[in-house]
Amino acid sequence: MPGPGYPQLIIARKRDGHALTPDEIASFVQGVVSGEWADYQTTALLMAIFLRGMTSAETSCLTECMMRSGVVADLAGVPGIKVDKHSSGGVGDKVSLILAPLVAACGVPVPMMSGRGLGHTGGTLDKLEAIPGFRVGLSLREYAEQLRRIGVAMIGQTAELVPADRKLYALRDVTATVESIPLICASIMSKKLAEGIDALVLDVTFGRGAFMKDKARARELAAALVAIGRGVGKPTRAVLTSMDQPLGRAVGNAVEVVECLEALQGRGPADLMEVTYVLGVHMLQLGRITADPAEARRQLESALASGAALAKFRELVTAQGGDAAVIDDHARLPQAGLIREVRAPIAGYVVDVDPMAVAQAALLLGAGRAHAAATIDPAVGFSNFVKVGEAVCAGDRLCTVHANDETKARTAVEQVQRAIAIGPAPVSGPPLIDEVVA
Amino acid sequence: MPGPGYPQLIIARKRDGHALTPDEIASFVQGVVSGEWADYQTTALLMAIFLRGMTSAETSCLTECMMRSGVVADLAGVPGIKVDKHSSGGVGDKVSLILAPLVAACGVPVPMMSGRGLGHTGGTLDKLEAIPGFRVGLSLREYAEQLRRIGVAMIGQTAELVPADRKLYALRDVTATVESIPLICASIMSKKLAEGIDALVLDVTFGRGAFMKDKARARELAAALVAIGRGVGKPTRAVLTSMDQPLGRAVGNAVEVVECLEALQGRGPADLMEVTYVLGVHMLQLGRITADPAEARRQLESALASGAALAKFRELVTAQGGDAAVIDDHARLPQAGLIREVRAPIAGYVVDVDPMAVAQAALLLGAGRAHAAATIDPAVGFSNFVKVGEAVCAGDRLCTVHANDETKARTAVEQVQRAIAIGPAPVSGPPLIDEVVA
Repeated sequence: MPGPGYPQLIIARKRDGHALTPDEIASFVQGVVSGEWADYQTTALLMAIFLRGMTSAETSCLTECMMRSGVVADLAGVPGIKVDKHSSGGVGDKVSLILAPLVAACGVPVPMMSGRGLGHTGGTLDKLEAIPGFRVGLSLREYAEQLRRIGVAMIGQTAELVPADRKLYALRDVTATVESIPLICASIMSKKLAEGIDALVLDVTFGRGAFMKDKARARELAAALVAIGRGVGKPTRAVLTSMDQPLGRAVGNAVEVVECLEALQGRGPADLMEVTYVLGVHMLQLGRITADPAEARRQLESALASGAALAKFRELVTAQGGDAAVIDDHARLPQAGLIREVRAPIAGYVVDVDPMAVAQAALLLGAGRAHAAATIDPAVGFSNFVKVGEAVCAGDRLCTVHANDETKARTAVEQVQRAIAIGPAPVSGPPLIDEVVA
Repeated sequence: MPGPGYPQLIIARKRDGHALTPDEIASFVQGVVSGEWADYQTTALLMAIFLRGMTSAETSCLTECMMRSGVVADLAGVPGIKVDKHSSGGVGDKVSLILAPLVAACGVPVPMMSGRGLGHTGGTLDKLEAIPGFRVGLSLREYAEQLRRIGVAMIGQTAELVPADRKLYALRDVTATVESIPLICASIMSKKLAEGIDALVLDVTFGRGAFMKDKARARELAAALVAIGRGVGKPTRAVLTSMDQPLGRAVGNAVEVVECLEALQGRGPADLMEVTYVLGVHMLQLGRITADPAEARRQLESALASGAALAKFRELVTAQGGDAAVIDDHARLPQAGLIREVRAPIAGYVVDVDPMAVAQAALLLGAGRAHAAATIDPAVGFSNFVKVGEAVCAGDRLCTVHANDETKARTAVEQVQRAIAIGPAPVSGPPLIDEVVA
């Protein structure tokens, strides 16, 4: 008969609604990595966690055990308070590419590691890789060294970090156990903690274009994430942002890089800049540059206006082997062969741009991944998107489609046309920045 | 993106508390057998079923899909209404060995297939195999032919029946998803239906020595089993019996065979005979021998008194290759090398015989299996057990220990001594037969 610590007894305790002990959680995570827990036992526990939940103490413990399941980056040699940002994602979310060099230019070291999940458009790594030569696969030694030298690094998760998360995530994905707040929290936070951060700002999105459709659930997730950060002694704040239309005016990879370069030169769309500044203010506060939010905002705006943020981005691209000449010559980025304009069929006001319809159209063009082995076409996507509230005349451009296939271009034009609603009167959407959880 | 019928979507529907459709259940069961469902997906669904439950319609559908996952025995060539009995088991439960030949002697064909699970003492198959030469591994053809010829067969489940149950049970056993009423029901009933029965009597035990400790849960299980039987058009009745001390006076394998031979010759212990007769009455009623319970009981008693039941048992043993001479010469059964008596330390009344303590002691002696690969010692166990309510003098025998190892014998004597409580006044336990669910 199995004794304490055996998988089926731990599963039974969670099944019956008990809180697992730190020893039980540690034995689970070690067992997952070592293979002592069979996959079918792991998924039974994951479902029990999904349905029974976890206390805040259990979630923190799971996070720490997962963090320790592999190597934890040692950034002790990097002076300053290292602050990262994590976003739960959205359509057109390119904030990291602007925020990381901007905050680094203000003196806060930004150690940023990203995963390469599935998605309708590429993630941060895919956007960076649209820059010819840009290398996201640094070793941990290169990562720490670059951070020390230029104060910013943007890389992919290395295989030695948080192996428990890779295993658990792959199993959650095929067993309908992804959308569990304790499991989401432990997955996000274990990886962020393993990066070697001192503090963290979270952009928790909600709305039609976000992973969490519902604001109450997003707030719950934000509170749980912040609690874990606090529990492990890493100051964490979360900003709830609405994702009800694409962020900015570009959706894709190279087209979003262009938008970021414009933004770093002071020509960014208002919504994109607002999210960037709000997150940047919290990062500067957590990085102890200043406690005063108005002063933090002033410093960020000044680093942008002075060109310091753009210079930091140039340093970053150069340090990671990318072609920094793209900054001055956007034509060096991958270019799509077919450019099509979507035109307004009637005059009026833009009352909706459905973010999921845009995302589906981007996926169809080849900008994202439907399965892990899919390759991305960095050149395709959308630029010049109209925003909700803008007035248009019949025949005005609503969006520019970048495609490499005639049929796909045609379909994308039709899909975007359907995604954009034009009405007789202006509407105002929900506020972009909803609340801060700290 | 997965479409309808994909494992993760079916898992998500049960996770969210929905009733699965017949198509979804069929696709699950087929997927389990074909391997299209990965084990880790199966166990996630099993845990969701454990925690969310299943409606009666879902459970019936699962039962039928599992039944059809393999061959269904064809007993059309066997005249009469075939009635089987299933027990949820208990310590000293040897009812099948008496009941099957007794009911068959009254004219009801009894097709009995048993599994070979884990247990503190052996199951029906192990007890039968204590008879030298007895062969439980008949083919389906031999099984049907023997039933037609002598009206009774007692065999092990053949590999071609209900493969879905073997797979699911093995996974449930290691993922803490055994004790789910819909899953228990579907497992029991799919196997019984695949045997080719027309009707079924269930002995659902409750109490300290039973799988279900709690009477309310046992009643719930009984009602669910009866509902499935009704749902698939196989009349089913359940009898709730209490299992608070070992049934009869013997616990083991060969020792229980001896007790059964005594019982078939009219010398069975009262509790064992009472359970046997009550179940037998229902079997004769379902087998349309008579609708009148008093008449059914009379026929059973008469078949026992006349020697017809013993003769049927002899036919059974002979038909399945066993040494029928054991019936007249018990010494031909396996004999333990060491016989020890447990004596009453004080005079008084037996107020308790803890069935689980006795079961543990039997397991230690080697009478049962702690893991699937363990072998059973058919000779070891206990006989001459006192029963609750009996008066004893100091030094009277409480039980005889049959062992093949001196240390184990000593430990068993101590364990049994502790399992039996003697008090100053007689007590009466719960009624043996509690209620009937039909």
